[in-house]
Amino acid sequence: MGQLLKVQNFCVSRDGYGAGEAQSLEHPFGHVDPQGLMSWAGATASWPNRTDPGGSRGLDDYFTRDFSHNIGAEIMGRNKFGPQRGPWQDHEWQGWWGDNPPFRTPVFVLTHHERPSFTLNDTTFHFLDASPADALAEAREAAQGRDVRLGGGATTIREFLAADLVDTLHVAVADIEFGSGVRLWESPDELTDRFHLEVVPSPSGVTHHIFWRK
Amino acid sequence: MGQLLKVQNFCVSRDGYGAGEAQSLEHPFGHVDPQGLMSWAGATASWPNRTDPGGSRGLDDYFTRDFSHNIGAEIMGRNKFGPQRGPWQDHEWQGWWGDNPPFRTPVFVLTHHERPSFTLNDTTFHFLDASPADALAEAREAAQGRDVRLGGGATTIREFLAADLVDTLHVAVADIEFGSGVRLWESPDELTDRFHLEVVPSPSGVTHHIFWRK
Repeated sequence: MGQLLKVQNFCVSRDGYGAGEAQSLEHPFGHVDPQGLMSWAGATASWPNRTDPGGSRGLDDYFTRDFSHNIGAEIMGRNKFGPQRGPWQDHEWQGWWGDNPPFRTPVFVLTHHERPSFTLNDTTFHFLDASPADALAEAREAAQGRDVRLGGGATTIREFLAADLVDTLHVAVADIEFGSGVRLWESPDELTDRFHLEVVPSPSGVTHHIFWRK
Repeated sequence: MGQLLKVQNFCVSRDGYGAGEAQSLEHPFGHVDPQGLMSWAGATASWPNRTDPGGSRGLDDYFTRDFSHNIGAEIMGRNKFGPQRGPWQDHEWQGWWGDNPPFRTPVFVLTHHERPSFTLNDTTFHFLDASPADALAEAREAAQGRDVRLGGGATTIREFLAADLVDTLHVAVADIEFGSGVRLWESPDELTDRFHLEVVPSPSGVTHHIFWRK
């Protein structure tokens, strides 16, 4: 099947939002608390930021440890990369992830405002002003035969879905409501004309939605 | 947590059997048809023996592609390796898997009848007359920091469970009955004194049982 474009471990609220309103440096997810979105992954043994040796090894851990499986590049929207909007004021901002970002591949950040590439440990960030199709072509080349992860946010995923470029999606629906924010969908059923869908409730309370192309 | 000993994708019937009676060269699983045990994995996109480009990418595919995740060695019983019993008549038999076995790591075959190691592509088979604890120590060293898979059969898994050496188990329970054969358990509840258990039904009809140590 060649190189897939995959959404993995993308978290949304029960009402379909991937983030709240008014994202900022202090509030990367805007008016909502991301803890409730991502606690299912943080509780697993394979969570990259785990500081103690515990953690669950049940269903949720399979999704957590699959994050890097056969992935050779990531594409993300600029709003996932940082809180700034408009032209870059400086190049000091290097993402939310500190000196050792969890991607460990080339990452292509979509932005209308280009800036030079830089490398943190095993991750190199590139900045692209490109259509979804052109960005995917560039990421596929960088991935050297491996798959490409579409990292989000919700708006970026919607753009790639609109361009019919996404092969698989794993969306974890948390049992919380945001009321407003950056929306992925009104309902997962919007995608079932083009995708198979399996809905798998986890004992943790999150509901995994797994889509793959028909 | 160090190097885990993991049972992965081990398939049993609803009544707890991993194989039937009277295993032979012609009938590796004895009186039962293994197709019904393993069809859930064979239907996935990640199944190693897949010859066409299709296959499902839902829940079952996560388990199929996790098979080699961070695994550095496998331990298996002799009855998984081949149909012979007693002293080796010759060394021509090299396992069920042809020239390119799916393990791609050192494999330690437990047997009271030693024979020389040999290599097929990326897999080297070693033959050990050792206790479960000693076999695990040797496999851990060969795994070079990675985890060790306990490949089965059911009797071998029971021996390692009796020695309390197993850290995680994934057992796929197929919706078929064998009536007799090589038993893994009377019921998965036998393990819940020592293990957490998540029971996850798959749309394919198989029920994934995921255990990890309390």
